[in-house]
Amino acid sequence: MPHYKLAFLGFGNVGRALAVLLMRKRDELRQRYGITFSVTGIATARHGMLVKPVGVDLTGALDLLRAGHPLNLITSTLVSDSFDFIRKCEADVLFENTPVSHADGQPAIDHIKLALELGMHVATANKGPVVHAYRELTELAESKGKKFLHESTVMDGAPIFSLFREAIPLAQLKSFKGVLNSTTNIILTRMETGEPFDEAVKYCQQIGIAETDPSGDVDGWDAAIKVAALATVLMGVPLKPQQVERSGIRGITPEMVAAAKAEGRRYKLVCSAERTGDTVSGKVAPELVPMSSPMYSVEGSTSIIEFKTDVLGDLSIVEKDPGPHTTAYGLLADFVNAVKDR
Amino acid sequence: MPHYKLAFLGFGNVGRALAVLLMRKRDELRQRYGITFSVTGIATARHGMLVKPVGVDLTGALDLLRAGHPLNLITSTLVSDSFDFIRKCEADVLFENTPVSHADGQPAIDHIKLALELGMHVATANKGPVVHAYRELTELAESKGKKFLHESTVMDGAPIFSLFREAIPLAQLKSFKGVLNSTTNIILTRMETGEPFDEAVKYCQQIGIAETDPSGDVDGWDAAIKVAALATVLMGVPLKPQQVERSGIRGITPEMVAAAKAEGRRYKLVCSAERTGDTVSGKVAPELVPMSSPMYSVEGSTSIIEFKTDVLGDLSIVEKDPGPHTTAYGLLADFVNAVKDR
Repeated sequence: MPHYKLAFLGFGNVGRALAVLLMRKRDELRQRYGITFSVTGIATARHGMLVKPVGVDLTGALDLLRAGHPLNLITSTLVSDSFDFIRKCEADVLFENTPVSHADGQPAIDHIKLALELGMHVATANKGPVVHAYRELTELAESKGKKFLHESTVMDGAPIFSLFREAIPLAQLKSFKGVLNSTTNIILTRMETGEPFDEAVKYCQQIGIAETDPSGDVDGWDAAIKVAALATVLMGVPLKPQQVERSGIRGITPEMVAAAKAEGRRYKLVCSAERTGDTVSGKVAPELVPMSSPMYSVEGSTSIIEFKTDVLGDLSIVEKDPGPHTTAYGLLADFVNAVKDR
Repeated sequence: MPHYKLAFLGFGNVGRALAVLLMRKRDELRQRYGITFSVTGIATARHGMLVKPVGVDLTGALDLLRAGHPLNLITSTLVSDSFDFIRKCEADVLFENTPVSHADGQPAIDHIKLALELGMHVATANKGPVVHAYRELTELAESKGKKFLHESTVMDGAPIFSLFREAIPLAQLKSFKGVLNSTTNIILTRMETGEPFDEAVKYCQQIGIAETDPSGDVDGWDAAIKVAALATVLMGVPLKPQQVERSGIRGITPEMVAAAKAEGRRYKLVCSAERTGDTVSGKVAPELVPMSSPMYSVEGSTSIIEFKTDVLGDLSIVEKDPGPHTTAYGLLADFVNAVKDR
């Protein structure tokens, strides 16, 4: 029965939710896939790093962190920084979930490279490495017989990348269209009741889903990064967020939203990409969506993507109520898909 | 490079579409999966059976059939019936697409059993064997180290079974809800414009999607068979169509439909199932669906299914414009998933 050593680089809400999920699914992993695991390292941003090749007591570590204590209350191999952590954790699978710079994907890219070079599989929820180094990291992983997986980078843990990789073999993606940014979708939904744009933004900041500077969402940058990641991986054409034609939702008024709704249409910030020959063009822009579109009923934090392929009719995936636990599930699914049947 | 011999038992619209798709994807199959194939047998209902272990010229066979000629213009091993065909075709993979009795799943079940016993993988678009013999056929396949796959039995080739099997490992299905019968959905959509039930049924008969006796659709039998197939496979609890609580759409009037639409709701024939402890209860019934539901925008032959699992938020799959070519794709996907990585 194959045994896998796991390490967490980054242990915030998502990392902790993954730890809880792994414990909950321990028996099922063994029964259905013959997989057992232990955790040999946990690196946090503010509560220290723990490396213990004989295995960490996950429950104990989570209890310590919940009580606000640093992890180094547990006996640990001495580690100096995140790279030293990767070198010493002796893991077979690294979950990379550090804060990432969307501008250049660092330091996550270097973390992932090192882990792959050391022969680990890597699963990440960071979009940066996908957008800035997908091909390089995938080729490096292949050369080592390992996997670089990233299901949780778009639509949290909903199966998007695994859909094409595992479930619909040989399907060629011609174009996609979707609503992939929650904040703008909540803002537009609230404006349908007459709430002004600024109030709707404030609401999103209060519930913690919009930043103090909301431009990443309302100007379409987050959406553009997702378009770039999807085009790069699923259409095989590297696309940078800056290459995505982008307009946000600042120009939309409650009056426009109300008038559209009265005509049976709704404004959505639509993400799309289309292949023409060997090139792919990506776009983020507000669109009036008719009732006959599956995007019409997408409200709040729900997201949707519609794929046009050469083998099926339009195929849409809709995900409701995402959160750290669904992002964590995507990482678990990556782990299973990386090691099953091997 | 692994080479697979394929045989078609049943060669109607779906089988022919699959033959065309296989030829179109021949190079990609080799490049991406290292798979090559030849066709060693084709059995039709009215144009004879062809067995040729050295390989059939698919283009030639399709041309013959298109011209209305029988296949036995091509030199063939002598075969007496469908079982003799299975015994002599020497295939590694059998595509079983004969007309099936929904009452007992025969003769498809016996065809599949024989093929599995002879060491073939089997892919089918027939719901009968799934509803009446899923466990038996799956166990037989496992005992032979082969696969019994059936992606195209629900929502044509859209990834439903492969989603759970391949893309979202360890997800436990708690319940599902969907619109899975096209005919009733087209009827209800047309009734929104005031068209009476009988006229709408006639329209469906004219375009060839409803039978002369429309009761299989309008009384919910087709939907109940799909609920039974999904519950049996995805929830691990064998459910017969007769065990699905079922009411059709005969009681719905254009007035009811129009009144609902005016309130922002639409009638849909909703298929659902829910797990309670070790049992699963299935249901087919008309429901008033609100605008906030992804089922709301599902029109015409589009179908949708929404899954509740223990690991993700509600996850929906929507498929537009199904047809013989998408059913054929599901069979191709089954073939690839049966043999890849092996």
